[in-house]
Amino acid sequence: MGKTALVLLAGGAEELETVSVIDILARAKVKVVVAGVAGTSVVTCSRGAKIQPDVALADVMGTAFDLVYLPGGLDGMHALANSADVGKLLKDQHENKRLIAAICAAPCALKTHGISKGAKVTSYPSMKDQLHSFYKYTEEDIVVDGHILTSRGPGTASMFGLKLAEMLTDRATAKAVADSMLIPYSA
Amino acid sequence: MGKTALVLLAGGAEELETVSVIDILARAKVKVVVAGVAGTSVVTCSRGAKIQPDVALADVMGTAFDLVYLPGGLDGMHALANSADVGKLLKDQHENKRLIAAICAAPCALKTHGISKGAKVTSYPSMKDQLHSFYKYTEEDIVVDGHILTSRGPGTASMFGLKLAEMLTDRATAKAVADSMLIPYSA
Repeated sequence: MGKTALVLLAGGAEELETVSVIDILARAKVKVVVAGVAGTSVVTCSRGAKIQPDVALADVMGTAFDLVYLPGGLDGMHALANSADVGKLLKDQHENKRLIAAICAAPCALKTHGISKGAKVTSYPSMKDQLHSFYKYTEEDIVVDGHILTSRGPGTASMFGLKLAEMLTDRATAKAVADSMLIPYSA
Repeated sequence: MGKTALVLLAGGAEELETVSVIDILARAKVKVVVAGVAGTSVVTCSRGAKIQPDVALADVMGTAFDLVYLPGGLDGMHALANSADVGKLLKDQHENKRLIAAICAAPCALKTHGISKGAKVTSYPSMKDQLHSFYKYTEEDIVVDGHILTSRGPGTASMFGLKLAEMLTDRATAKAVADSMLIPYSA
């Protein structure tokens, strides 16, 4: 059966981090569902792009996805951190060791929900101070620590998407996706 | 006065090419307007991301923008090529030597509308056969020929966005945007 990914979308999310992962996973034939944390209304992202969620988060609570992805953006991160549904979803994902991916500011939302204390993570550079006492902080572009996956920002989002595609499918698929997008990638 | 950019959005557009340029130009303080070629309805992009236009193209006909940007995607390109409004807008933009940027499949829409025959352009590799007899075709990632700007695909969209930001503002601004996004950029 094909793999599935849930993208958590809230107002102020980084549009490029959101769309890079949607695009790349869809090319890898992962079924991607974009869930609006505040419902199905159109979400205005951090630089003004307006994205329509596929579903409301409330409507997919209880459904298991192979990956849950949290894009960054400061306001988006705060909305993810303040959502009880996001907390519940992440705890279930974590307890079942299914993949959780967060980029840019979003690892702070993982911390707020108490996900995987002590895990090796990275984030947008300015978030380091909020994370280094809870996690084992590194400055690598992409960090894989078991099922906790983190990355730094818009400039690393495509490579992060390809790494997620590789983990959900295989290296040959990720390489084929990268080639089709004209992204240099050594698989 | 601040610079302005119009992004032409049609069903089947490449979401990553669309959003990369929206995001980067907005960070460079360019006023970005996303115009739906078919109106203000939400547009489903080539890999399923759903983007809400800011305005209908019909409502901004006659307004001069410093840049008109055409994202790729095969179905999106066909919609741009088949739109009389897009043709009229591009001809006005071209006659007034204001910037026209097209990526991936979208240079084919420029050709359909008869824009700048003989200009030096690039495109997604598989579009070469449709373009090389009308344009001076090259395989560079980004081509600037006067006010006609072209690029290759999703993997070159961020660098293309930074080049557009540089042309609408200055190199220092583009470099600051790249730094904020963690994109390597030598200005």
